[in-house]
Amino acid sequence: MATKRIPETTVKRLFIYLREVTELSEFNIRTVSSSELGERTNLSDAQVRKDLGYFGQFGVSGSGYNVLELKKALERIVGKDKRWKVALVGVGHLGEALLSYSGFTEQGLDIVSAFDVSEDLVGASVKGVKVESFAKLREAVKENGIPMAIIAVPAGEAQKAADVLVDSGIKCILNFAPVNLDVPGKIKVNNVDLSRELEILAYFLASGNGGWR
Amino acid sequence: MATKRIPETTVKRLFIYLREVTELSEFNIRTVSSSELGERTNLSDAQVRKDLGYFGQFGVSGSGYNVLELKKALERIVGKDKRWKVALVGVGHLGEALLSYSGFTEQGLDIVSAFDVSEDLVGASVKGVKVESFAKLREAVKENGIPMAIIAVPAGEAQKAADVLVDSGIKCILNFAPVNLDVPGKIKVNNVDLSRELEILAYFLASGNGGWR
Repeated sequence: MATKRIPETTVKRLFIYLREVTELSEFNIRTVSSSELGERTNLSDAQVRKDLGYFGQFGVSGSGYNVLELKKALERIVGKDKRWKVALVGVGHLGEALLSYSGFTEQGLDIVSAFDVSEDLVGASVKGVKVESFAKLREAVKENGIPMAIIAVPAGEAQKAADVLVDSGIKCILNFAPVNLDVPGKIKVNNVDLSRELEILAYFLASGNGGWR
Repeated sequence: MATKRIPETTVKRLFIYLREVTELSEFNIRTVSSSELGERTNLSDAQVRKDLGYFGQFGVSGSGYNVLELKKALERIVGKDKRWKVALVGVGHLGEALLSYSGFTEQGLDIVSAFDVSEDLVGASVKGVKVESFAKLREAVKENGIPMAIIAVPAGEAQKAADVLVDSGIKCILNFAPVNLDVPGKIKVNNVDLSRELEILAYFLASGNGGWR
C-alpha cells in the first residue's frame, strides 16, 4: 500500500496517534476529534488532519474520527498487522543480546537466521536460532526473500556485511556498528550507536557535570 | 576537570579526533596539523583548532600537534581513563540483554548492581550481577555513590524509576523506555528508543518501500 511518498516526520507521528487511539479504545471511547487528538499529542488539529489526510478520509465532519476504524487503519498503514523475516549478522555479545530482546517480535520482526564468521559459533544454536556461516549470507537472504537485516559486527567489518546484504537484495538494515554505511539510496538504514551514547555519558561524568551546555 | 561549559557538538567531535589520533599513533605518526586532522574528519582546520582550544594549548605553531600527547589529553578529557559504577533498573529481556553487552565495560561503565520489582528475580544472579529489590534502589545508589543508571523498565514504570533515581542523587540516566522522562535540568538523560527504530523499519517494509521521502 501507500505509493505516495510520506515524510518520515509524518510517519513518526502516526505511531503517536496509534498509541493514543489504542488507549482511547481501551476506555471504550468511540469517537475523537482532530483537536482532541491534537491536544493529547501536543499537535495542532490542522497537523493531525494533514497527517491522516495522507492516507484517505477517516474523519466525518462534525463527529470526528471513529476510534476503532482509525486504530485499525493506522495499524495497517504502519505494518502492525504483518510479520517480517529478519537476518542477524554477527553473533557476538551484542548479537546474542539482540536475540534475547523481545522488542523485535513485538514489532512483527522475526529473527529467522543468524550469521557469523567464527568457526566456533557456526552450527551452534543461540537463543533458539541456528548460526550459519557468513559465507552463506548472500544465498540465504536471496533464497528466503529476507527483507531486513541487523548488522551487529565490529565497525571494521560492517561495510563488508552491508555490501553482501545489498547484493543479496535486502531492503532495510538496522545497523549497530559505529560506522556510516555506504549503501544505495533505495536501501533504508537506521543506525543505533549505543557506544556513542555511552561515550557521551562517560564524558559527562568525567567532566564533573560542569562541562555541559 | 573542565569547569568551562563545552557545547555537546564539540564533545561529540572530540571522540572523532580521538579515533583519528589513535589510528595515527598506531601507524607511528608523531605529529599532525590541524588541517590534516580537519581533512581526515571533514572539518575545517579552524573548527579543529577551536574545538581543541577549549582544553588548552596542544599545538605547536608550525609543527602541528604531538599525536601521542593529544591522544592522552583527549582520553583524559573524555574520561576514557576512568571507570564508573552503573546501576541497572529493570532486569527483563532488555535488561538481561544489556548485562551481556560488552560495550559498557569498554566505555569504562561497570554495571555493579541491578534492580527489579519481580519477586522471582530478586536474589538471583543474572550474568554475574545480583538482582536486588526495586525497594532498595534509592538506598543502594546513595550509599555506593553510583553516578549513573540505566532504565530498562516498561514505559509505564520509567518515570517512577527516574524519580527514585533523582532522589538518590544520580547524575545521569541512559533511558531505554519509550517515554520522555521528567527530571531536573542538571540530570543528563540520553534516550535509546529501540522499539521506535523498529517501528519505523516495519513501516518501511509494510509500505512496499514507496512510502518514504
